Amino acid sequence: QFYLEPEDIKIRHKKYHRASHKGDYGKVMLIGGSLGKVGAVYMASKGALRTGSGLVSAFVPKCGLNILQASLPEVMVEISNNEYIIDALPENMERFDAIGIGPGKGTDIKSAEVLQKLMSRYKKNIVIDADAINIIAQNEEIKDLIRDNMILTPHVMEFERLVGKCIDHTDRLKKAIDFCAVHKCILILKGPNTTICMPDGRMYFNSTGTKYLATGGTGDVLTGILTSFIGQGYSAENAAICGVYHHGLAGQLASVNKLHGTIATDIIDKIPETFYVLNHSAGNF
Amino acid sequence: QFYLEPEDIKIRHKKYHRASHKGDYGKVMLIGGSLGKVGAVYMASKGALRTGSGLVSAFVPKCGLNILQASLPEVMVEISNNEYIIDALPENMERFDAIGIGPGKGTDIKSAEVLQKLMSRYKKNIVIDADAINIIAQNEEIKDLIRDNMILTPHVMEFERLVGKCIDHTDRLKKAIDFCAVHKCILILKGPNTTICMPDGRMYFNSTGTKYLATGGTGDVLTGILTSFIGQGYSAENAAICGVYHHGLAGQLASVNKLHGTIATDIIDKIPETFYVLNHSAGNF
Amino acid sequence: QFYLEPEDIKIRHKKYHRASHKGDYGKVMLIGGSLGKVGAVYMASKGALRTGSGLVSAFVPKCGLNILQASLPEVMVEISNNEYIIDALPENMERFDAIGIGPGKGTDIKSAEVLQKLMSRYKKNIVIDADAINIIAQNEEIKDLIRDNMILTPHVMEFERLVGKCIDHTDRLKKAIDFCAVHKCILILKGPNTTICMPDGRMYFNSTGTKYLATGGTGDVLTGILTSFIGQGYSAENAAICGVYHHGLAGQLASVNKLHGTIATDIIDKIPETFYVLNHSAGNF
Amino acid sequence: QFYLEPEDIKIRHKKYHRASHKGDYGKVMLIGGSLGKVGAVYMASKGALRTGSGLVSAFVPKCGLNILQASLPEVMVEISNNEYIIDALPENMERFDAIGIGPGKGTDIKSAEVLQKLMSRYKKNIVIDADAINIIAQNEEIKDLIRDNMILTPHVMEFERLVGKCIDHTDRLKKAIDFCAVHKCILILKGPNTTICMPDGRMYFNSTGTKYLATGGTGDVLTGILTSFIGQGYSAENAAICGVYHHGLAGQLASVNKLHGTIATDIIDKIPETFYVLNHSAGNF
Repeated sequence: QFYLEPEDIKIRHKKYHRASHKGDYGKVMLIGGSLGKVGAVYMASKGALRTGSGLVSAFVPKCGLNILQASLPEVMVEISNNEYIIDALPENMERFDAIGIGPGKGTDIKSAEVLQKLMSRYKKNIVIDADAINIIAQNEEIKDLIRDNMILTPHVMEFERLVGKCIDHTDRLKKAIDFCAVHKCILILKGPNTTICMPDGRMYFNSTGTKYLATGGTGDVLTGILTSFIGQGYSAENAAICGVYHHGLAGQLASVNKLHGTIATDIIDKIPETFYVLNHSAGNF
Repeated sequence: QFYLEPEDIKIRHKKYHRASHKGDYGKVMLIGGSLGKVGAVYMASKGALRTGSGLVSAFVPKCGLNILQASLPEVMVEISNNEYIIDALPENMERFDAIGIGPGKGTDIKSAEVLQKLMSRYKKNIVIDADAINIIAQNEEIKDLIRDNMILTPHVMEFERLVGKCIDHTDRLKKAIDFCAVHKCILILKGPNTTICMPDGRMYFNSTGTKYLATGGTGDVLTGILTSFIGQGYSAENAAICGVYHHGLAGQLASVNKLHGTIATDIIDKIPETFYVLNHSAGNF
Repeated sequence: QFYLEPEDIKIRHKKYHRASHKGDYGKVMLIGGSLGKVGAVYMASKGALRTGSGLVSAFVPKCGLNILQASLPEVMVEISNNEYIIDALPENMERFDAIGIGPGKGTDIKSAEVLQKLMSRYKKNIVIDADAINIIAQNEEIKDLIRDNMILTPHVMEFERLVGKCIDHTDRLKKAIDFCAVHKCILILKGPNTTICMPDGRMYFNSTGTKYLATGGTGDVLTGILTSFIGQGYSAENAAICGVYHHGLAGQLASVNKLHGTIATDIIDKIPETFYVLNHSAGNF
Repeated sequence: QFYLEPEDIKIRHKKYHRASHKGDYGKVMLIGGSLGKVGAVYMASKGALRTGSGLVSAFVPKCGLNILQASLPEVMVEISNNEYIIDALPENMERFDAIGIGPGKGTDIKSAEVLQKLMSRYKKNIVIDADAINIIAQNEEIKDLIRDNMILTPHVMEFERLVGKCIDHTDRLKKAIDFCAVHKCILILKGPNTTICMPDGRMYFNSTGTKYLATGGTGDVLTGILTSFIGQGYSAENAAICGVYHHGLAGQLASVNKLHGTIATDIIDKIPETFYVLNHSAGNF
């Protein structure tokens, strides 16, 4: 069991050569969105951009096309045929170095089929969040597809849907360890002191974060951050550790003078500063 | 009769535990909007977010869907079947810890029916503003539904539609006391020195605020602030007192160097700072 | 002939009582927009808001509805029946304390008819800009409708369309004086040292402004500022003088560190500061 | 071979008279966009505005109309008949002082025909980027239309599509010289130390820029900057040299405290500051 210190993060940071180009920073895709919940994909996609991805694409139902294009010009948008539901996968998925799925997505049958196909066919790393976790919780067949190239990011309620009711947090952590051992995946159990469980039973407890992160959309931002790190070539383990740490730190920086009034887009805007602050500081935050 | 001082507000502030999660900050819904007036729901919804709600949903006619999604990614949007009018209530309203209704809404028959149903069926607190007040003023049957779980926020003109013409401000305050005694509701009479009337006849006079708040959309922001506080678990009384105070203070902070040029979105952006300023200051503003 | 000094502006500023309300700051409407040129109405409307109007409405073709609602939540939008053209006037125009017309509008026959009706029927002040001026230049019948409640704001090219080719700037100023004498209107001839001509032959030369104002949309912003001042109760003369001065000053403040890169929305954002700066400074800018 | 120093840029800057007007700053058009890639035209258009163009128009498929209008009010938008593809040229192209084409555009046959027509008919300067380059790479007939009034801005991959695989960077530069000698065009080979090749064989190596520019949309921004400079009356040579330099400097300024988290819109916002910084500094950046 490890408590994450700034030095644990710095040593995991990838160093970029002065002459690196767009491709070196990775090409990632975020899949999600549904009627009235397209903002979740905005959060995840902009989170990925602000973490340093070279190219970010979003895959949404048709209803998300104009919304994302009007608010996020850096992101390329691809669409599903259906107006409100993701009823197909993007073509040629191997273009992407990592895929994040879940934010703002539905739990209907079509969406479940799409998730299942993605988990079967896409061989690189997948970050699985929100309704994608809820789908898995309801479907053993899809649960069996969880593999060592996947990071799941449930909050407490989503986690208990996945593994059943827990007696207390100790029980929850035990069940998380078991879950990762069985499925060989990485699991990020979100909450105060977010915990990262590795397939071999190692656990990392995050030292950044604040109660002010408890607001709608912050989970989507984390999905974007994680997907971005993996797309940049971080191992899933290093992406999980760095992602959780930077996400929490961004929340702290955003809330310094906004307190309860901090919203998810504030946190996204602070992601770049987390790298700056981390590199120029000594000690904990 | 009380004149609100900073200490009156601070003691009413809820304290949050370090380990609180999204649910602790409440889940609220704002209902409103119509053709060309969707901005009012934007104001109310973003006002609620900036006051600290964990989850904010908006319920609008279809014409409001893309507008809100493109400009406010943190808010989840649900829609009525009608393109321009709210002709139905959201499903499963008890999901929400509080509902605010009125901003940008019409006064047509369908809208009146929807308001009537909401007031009959929803058992938690409701904040009633703008056209929702105008509907009540025209309909005794709906007026009879006003109960002790409701806050009405008329400005002077809306108030006189509700209770009839007043001779002067003293008469107006007297009628406000009578109104609250009859309906057991809380009434916030907006204007210079906004006054809060309680069902038992107590009146609070706000000490914050500025003439620069007299611009379109500021009333909608107040609706969002009030709904947010109630959703966070404040009593209706404490929500009314804190809401009015923070709203006025946000107006003061926003207008320091913008004067007449202050607009409603400036005020929203200053809500978080009101908590910071209030906690770090001594004396009045 | 007068060269405008800061003191000329300050004495014309309306003083507002501490207890003033939304109505005291006026209710104005901006009419304009067409396919691909809706941004012009955005500029004018936001310009009016930032100058201090209590309520700002925009009247646009249908194609402008979602664009304005998504980008400017404080403004209420009303629409013409036609998708791309303004083919009718708003109902009940006397609701508004002043109307500005022209930005982004077309010069087609329908648009000309609408302008003609507005100038015949609306009895309060009208600010006439851009394509509304071009329509007048092509139509003697509409030109005859110009009256003492109107401000025209042509730039040099639009002015010459109105009065015919001019030999030089002296000739231009002479023709402007003649034009105002005949039509009893106020004319603002935009350009370096913008000149304001009164019906009685008085001319004011503006002392604020910068070459960096020479960018698309700044004329629309001026229309919004002028309409706002009139709606706040300024005489047309005072509105013209103050409007031109504040507009130029906003351009100066916006371009201090943006130089050629200054764009129209930068200028809008600086309008509030012009009041602040003017009130706290001595001497010229 | 030249390494660009600040003084090389300053002497190429056009000086504007105090009394210059909108026309003096040029009228330019940016052509591009397709389903899900409209953001690229946003980048190019806003880049042109921030570089100082007096009037900027965008030409996009229908699907781009509302997206651009809602996010960029200063830009006038004209549309192709097709919903998703540019299937025609704008009318009366000679209105524009320069045209940039390519960002977010497709490579389909219709788009190729449109590019061919533009290159045949438009007699002023054209900046050719992105998919417009990819079209040329696939079509010898269009390649033959490259003339001395054109600037091509390929990144390494696009360049090799154009001239064939290169052994190393030396080979690449040699092929660039050959390409410019044959076609009499200017070629900007984007990458670390972006290189500008002139038709007569002179090469300039840029001294500004940063690895943090390697993010989606920055190439589109460069297209806007180049088109803007030409439209302002810079020679193609001076536009290429100044454009590349300012673009790189904007990237440096934007990334100072955003590092990997820098995105293309950050860079656009820093363009104005590049003029300021360049004029107030001595020595290199």
